[in-house]
Amino acid sequence: MKASDTYAVEPWCLRETRLELGDLARSESLFALSNGHIGLRGNLDEGEPFGLPGTYLNGCYERRPLPYAEAGYGYPESGQTVINVTNGKIMRLLVGDEPFDLRYGTLRAHERTLDFRTGVLQRCVEWVSPAGQAVQLRTQRLVSFTHRAVAAIRYELQPLDTASRLVVQSELVANEELPRPHADPRVAAVLASPLVPEASDVRALSAELVHRTRLSGLRVAAAMDHLVDTPSQVSTDTTHDDDWARTTFATRLEPGQVLCIDKVMAWGWSQARSLPAMRDQVAGALSGAMHSGWTGLAREQREHLDQFWECADVQIEGDAELQQAVRFSLFHVLQSAARAERRPIPAKGLTGPGYDGHCFWDTETFVLPVLTHTVPHATADVLRWRQDTLPLARERARQLTLRGAAFPWRTINGEECSSYWPAGTAAFHVNADIADAVVRYLAATEDEEFEHDTGLELLVETARLWRSLGHRTLEGRFRIDGITGPDEYSAVADNNVYTNLMAARNLRAAAGAAARHPRHAARLGVDADEVAAWRDAAANVIVPWDEVLGVHPQSEAFTAHERWNFDDTPPENYPLLLHYPYFDLYRKQVVKQADLVLALHLCGDQFTSEQKRRDFDYYEGLTVRDSSLSACTQSIVAAEVGHLGLAYDYAAEAAFMDLHDLEHNTRDGLHMAALAGAWLTLVHGFGGMRDHGQHLAFRPQLPEGIDRLTFGVARGASRLRVDVMPQEVAYTLMAGPGPLTIAHQDESLTLVVGDTVARPIGRRPRHPRPQQPPGRAPVRRRTQDPSTHE
Amino acid sequence: MKASDTYAVEPWCLRETRLELGDLARSESLFALSNGHIGLRGNLDEGEPFGLPGTYLNGCYERRPLPYAEAGYGYPESGQTVINVTNGKIMRLLVGDEPFDLRYGTLRAHERTLDFRTGVLQRCVEWVSPAGQAVQLRTQRLVSFTHRAVAAIRYELQPLDTASRLVVQSELVANEELPRPHADPRVAAVLASPLVPEASDVRALSAELVHRTRLSGLRVAAAMDHLVDTPSQVSTDTTHDDDWARTTFATRLEPGQVLCIDKVMAWGWSQARSLPAMRDQVAGALSGAMHSGWTGLAREQREHLDQFWECADVQIEGDAELQQAVRFSLFHVLQSAARAERRPIPAKGLTGPGYDGHCFWDTETFVLPVLTHTVPHATADVLRWRQDTLPLARERARQLTLRGAAFPWRTINGEECSSYWPAGTAAFHVNADIADAVVRYLAATEDEEFEHDTGLELLVETARLWRSLGHRTLEGRFRIDGITGPDEYSAVADNNVYTNLMAARNLRAAAGAAARHPRHAARLGVDADEVAAWRDAAANVIVPWDEVLGVHPQSEAFTAHERWNFDDTPPENYPLLLHYPYFDLYRKQVVKQADLVLALHLCGDQFTSEQKRRDFDYYEGLTVRDSSLSACTQSIVAAEVGHLGLAYDYAAEAAFMDLHDLEHNTRDGLHMAALAGAWLTLVHGFGGMRDHGQHLAFRPQLPEGIDRLTFGVARGASRLRVDVMPQEVAYTLMAGPGPLTIAHQDESLTLVVGDTVARPIGRRPRHPRPQQPPGRAPVRRRTQDPSTHE
Repeated sequence: MKASDTYAVEPWCLRETRLELGDLARSESLFALSNGHIGLRGNLDEGEPFGLPGTYLNGCYERRPLPYAEAGYGYPESGQTVINVTNGKIMRLLVGDEPFDLRYGTLRAHERTLDFRTGVLQRCVEWVSPAGQAVQLRTQRLVSFTHRAVAAIRYELQPLDTASRLVVQSELVANEELPRPHADPRVAAVLASPLVPEASDVRALSAELVHRTRLSGLRVAAAMDHLVDTPSQVSTDTTHDDDWARTTFATRLEPGQVLCIDKVMAWGWSQARSLPAMRDQVAGALSGAMHSGWTGLAREQREHLDQFWECADVQIEGDAELQQAVRFSLFHVLQSAARAERRPIPAKGLTGPGYDGHCFWDTETFVLPVLTHTVPHATADVLRWRQDTLPLARERARQLTLRGAAFPWRTINGEECSSYWPAGTAAFHVNADIADAVVRYLAATEDEEFEHDTGLELLVETARLWRSLGHRTLEGRFRIDGITGPDEYSAVADNNVYTNLMAARNLRAAAGAAARHPRHAARLGVDADEVAAWRDAAANVIVPWDEVLGVHPQSEAFTAHERWNFDDTPPENYPLLLHYPYFDLYRKQVVKQADLVLALHLCGDQFTSEQKRRDFDYYEGLTVRDSSLSACTQSIVAAEVGHLGLAYDYAAEAAFMDLHDLEHNTRDGLHMAALAGAWLTLVHGFGGMRDHGQHLAFRPQLPEGIDRLTFGVARGASRLRVDVMPQEVAYTLMAGPGPLTIAHQDESLTLVVGDTVARPIGRRPRHPRPQQPPGRAPVRRRTQDPSTHE
Repeated sequence: MKASDTYAVEPWCLRETRLELGDLARSESLFALSNGHIGLRGNLDEGEPFGLPGTYLNGCYERRPLPYAEAGYGYPESGQTVINVTNGKIMRLLVGDEPFDLRYGTLRAHERTLDFRTGVLQRCVEWVSPAGQAVQLRTQRLVSFTHRAVAAIRYELQPLDTASRLVVQSELVANEELPRPHADPRVAAVLASPLVPEASDVRALSAELVHRTRLSGLRVAAAMDHLVDTPSQVSTDTTHDDDWARTTFATRLEPGQVLCIDKVMAWGWSQARSLPAMRDQVAGALSGAMHSGWTGLAREQREHLDQFWECADVQIEGDAELQQAVRFSLFHVLQSAARAERRPIPAKGLTGPGYDGHCFWDTETFVLPVLTHTVPHATADVLRWRQDTLPLARERARQLTLRGAAFPWRTINGEECSSYWPAGTAAFHVNADIADAVVRYLAATEDEEFEHDTGLELLVETARLWRSLGHRTLEGRFRIDGITGPDEYSAVADNNVYTNLMAARNLRAAAGAAARHPRHAARLGVDADEVAAWRDAAANVIVPWDEVLGVHPQSEAFTAHERWNFDDTPPENYPLLLHYPYFDLYRKQVVKQADLVLALHLCGDQFTSEQKRRDFDYYEGLTVRDSSLSACTQSIVAAEVGHLGLAYDYAAEAAFMDLHDLEHNTRDGLHMAALAGAWLTLVHGFGGMRDHGQHLAFRPQLPEGIDRLTFGVARGASRLRVDVMPQEVAYTLMAGPGPLTIAHQDESLTLVVGDTVARPIGRRPRHPRPQQPPGRAPVRRRTQDPSTHE
């Protein structure tokens, strides 16, 4: 059944009123809770059935071998995989003699609700045991935004109809058996039972387990404590072994009597800290949370979210589904980042084990633009994490005979984990993407301290990389050869337009930052000659152009290659990478995800409008969107070049990626970049926001189907709200230290706090809808509108 | 110590008079015996010490997993590895109470001689046991050219000085423990003990063992029988277990009395044949060989080699080392091929386990040109093997979305074993190389039956591959994009000159063969349109040209790339692939092995003399020769463009590759292509032989240091001898069905059987010696000649 049928369309929550046991893994991802430090998949409280149990700590991984049939110099020898740490969310229940298990008995009522304003996952169940005993179970679960190490559960149970003997077992479980072992038996062996017990202890209603990962040597501590409230008598007992601890509550309740258990959990991990230190750390976190209690934690959660939504909320009139989707997206983006604090934001956040829990360039290019304009400090935190990994990135650059820093394609701890270099190491654009995130953050916040402490070093080290990666021709041009751009259906090409333009921006930004902070730059060894070399390389970077077709080739010679034979590619052969060899994909004109089109968006100031239109149309015919990283960019550029209907279709695809499970892998975790992309399509696409110059610029225009779009943007200490209607846009400076200048279309507007400035929206020329490869057009958002002119 | 110090310089044999226990593995390769079906490394008769025990049967392999950290569509899931089959060459000896083991006691005299005319490896040892008992051991070993399944040993033993009790144990041993297990534990597990016992039996002085490989399911039978001759009384006994059989000879000899044991061994393997059939097969082979006896086998061996040398011998005056080396080379090339009979010729022949025993393009491009002009039937056999594997090559092409046949980059059984596609699958030139071998064989033999039965199908299926691999531009040009040429320091490039020219030849040859054999072609589904498409593609194939530099880029854009920084590359960083990532190598101008220069040789009719000279000089500055496949080609083209001294240096490098262990890996087996290359440098280089047109053409010229060069060439049923002196060349048609027309320089000569035609040699212009990358110039063959003009 379709995911979209399972969930009600509501503006502020995701509600499930039917339990599909076969789809549990998907719902566990959608209902995952996280604060960026801890991640709990939405597993049922009773532990099973499950799709995939998951408790993750950001940055906590196990090493695993990376096997090669034919190894090569510089191939990483070991990788990192996020591990399922000690599970604290299990609350087993015995009703009479029967275990509460939804595979048996009768489920009379079921509802789960993830509320984007409270940050609490609620569940309400009425179940009749096989022996005929009915119970009602209400649980609430949160991962605290305000207590970084803490999650909590409120567990309320009452018998219905008749009195019942009830036993609740609240657990901590390490080394849970996982389904779907890894295909490589050696990797499976490493990951099967990654936690080696170090210590365990119980006391009254509390327990703690300390483990250490076998190969990566990380110490992981987990603890729980409880508060029980019930009108009846309760027997309690806490016991443990190496890999588990259990607090048992046994009681007998009359119908209507409620057993309420508040469970508070805390986790910590460290590479360096001692066993006693880690025990104290989680015990301390637990004490702090017990002091707040469930009510306190829930109140703080709500307050934190209120603040977030006040700035970040996006309101949509006319499309209730999209309204829900963009709030769902923002909520999960916030969850991935709020308390990440110098740790990565993985591609799946902390919602599932997909991509081994690795962080990619997606974070900087798709997630950080959202955070930069909604939760700026979270962007700074991620970039500080990148800075923390600079020693590893420098070492990697040395290994590759390059200067500066070469950030990894995929990683948890900062070391390269990509074992396939043409689509990993060669994709050097990740370095420019990090630099771009620095530039964007600085433009948005004017955070000077960040600039000289963190931004400058990141810009300098990445600029050095580009300077050594490219080379000068005798004619003085700057070439960057043999690298891989964003499109993963091409690899190892010369002068990728996106990479070259982003590298040039990186080089210019480093030069600018060094000029602004000469003392800090000098400490990094930057001198005037180096800065001049950066500017010079940036000014001379090659941007290939196909005279005959009048379009930019994605990389040199791209447009000379054979077009993919789309006509003979049956629908079931998508995604292509599962049905065709890389060899074949790389040598033909077929695009997995926006690459040149991403340059049209992010480096839009480097193209004429006519070029954008022609380029966009050309690449539409080649782009198959076998990646979740494409639709949002296509939406944004489609809106800009005058294909508003198409932009709307792509916006919906980005927004519904996980809610509708469009790529059939939401079970492994949510697509953070696509979720962030939903915001980007609205703000950059229909809001037309760009950040190329000194001032934020807007060029809004709504597609048919959206009647009104309102969004907030943080810019330094200023808070701007933009309210877009079909014919008019209103800009309001909600808060700020002083006036804020922005650009509307080609006009400069200076806003004063509290004032609203309205402007009419000029209708831009519309063009014939371009053709996508057969079968690869996005689903029409407005099926009643079959026009090809928009 | 240097290999060159160990062996005496003699014209017709390789003689070792000193045993270096640390260099055993190298000598085992140099002294390996093979007939192309069976290969025995030159292990000491007593089994140990050894460098690497080795008994190989051509085509007999075990499957092994090919692990990938990140797999991709079309990656081969399992590979093939040559296995060390049942060892029959062990003759253990007890002298008194002491095992004969050269690590103990005193070695009074040692000599091993591989005689290129008798095809027998002789050993003569005088050894004094730790207890003081001296013995003389003389052994002779051959792998029969005339009995394909048979090898034999004559073992002669006498006590010196005093009488002695002697026990000889003649063995068959399966699943020998090998040193250096594979790095991947799963692969090591598979290869540690690959043979599963099926049957074993003994009878009087004979024994047999039958095994089956665990994963590939090949049945391997080995058997031995003995004849003993001695003046004293001998007790004999034969016993066995699953993995071994042993015939024991116990006697007591007076000084001067000789114990002579003739041991005959037979092997067979099959995928299909039953256990009884395999037992009968080896028993039958054994009976046939026992009937000939040692003397008969040795006589037939000599006769076979006499015939070979009569046509194939190359005589060199002025350079005794090179004389020895070229005969050593020809002997091993013959050994690799003589009885291969529809089996591959692996890169290492059957002399060691290097490259997993795989066959590459080397066979067609380097080894077959030698065989075609010396032992033509061996070329036909190899190409028939390729034809036998066509079903697999067609399936591989389908998997790659191509038509026709895609032959594997490396294989034993015809399935692709390359796990790194940029340097494997993408190197499609192997298909053109096979087609080229067909064309060359047909030109040399005019073997019509082969043409319509085998050659045509190979040409057609490879032409189909090229037609589908390339594509037409709107301007009508034929492009072949995203492939890898011969140079392994570049990969996945567009319009590789070598590949494009060879593909064009392939297409033209297929068209020509189809036109000559329309009925056979029709059976392969070839019609006039297809033939026209081949001719048309061939006529329009792109050959990139760099206007500015006035040279051919190896592939499109190659000359735009950065030059490798040779100045900062220290000598210990060669070979580069062990010290720099592929990423870095691929994107820069640095050449591992002749690629464009190979095109200058093999497609020499497609370049002007001026282009050849300029191209050669340009690529000399970039070519580091980290491959044994380079020196011979550089030698040939250097000779053509007028760098005779340099050509001589490269010729020596090719010829001494294994004799002097230049790449420090002769221990793993001999470099068949380099050995073949030694012949090519003499015949194609200094003999100036080319085969582009209707007639064989010669343009001979000797370097200083070679006073005379004589070689034989088979052309159809004709046998030509060419006798080159500094000022003159003489052509003699030794045998043949009628007159033979050849070209000398630009003159056409028609030779009659028995006549000699002499012509003066025009001195061609010489040019300044080009520069190689620092430290990568070949060793000067004539150190007394420091001139840079040659």
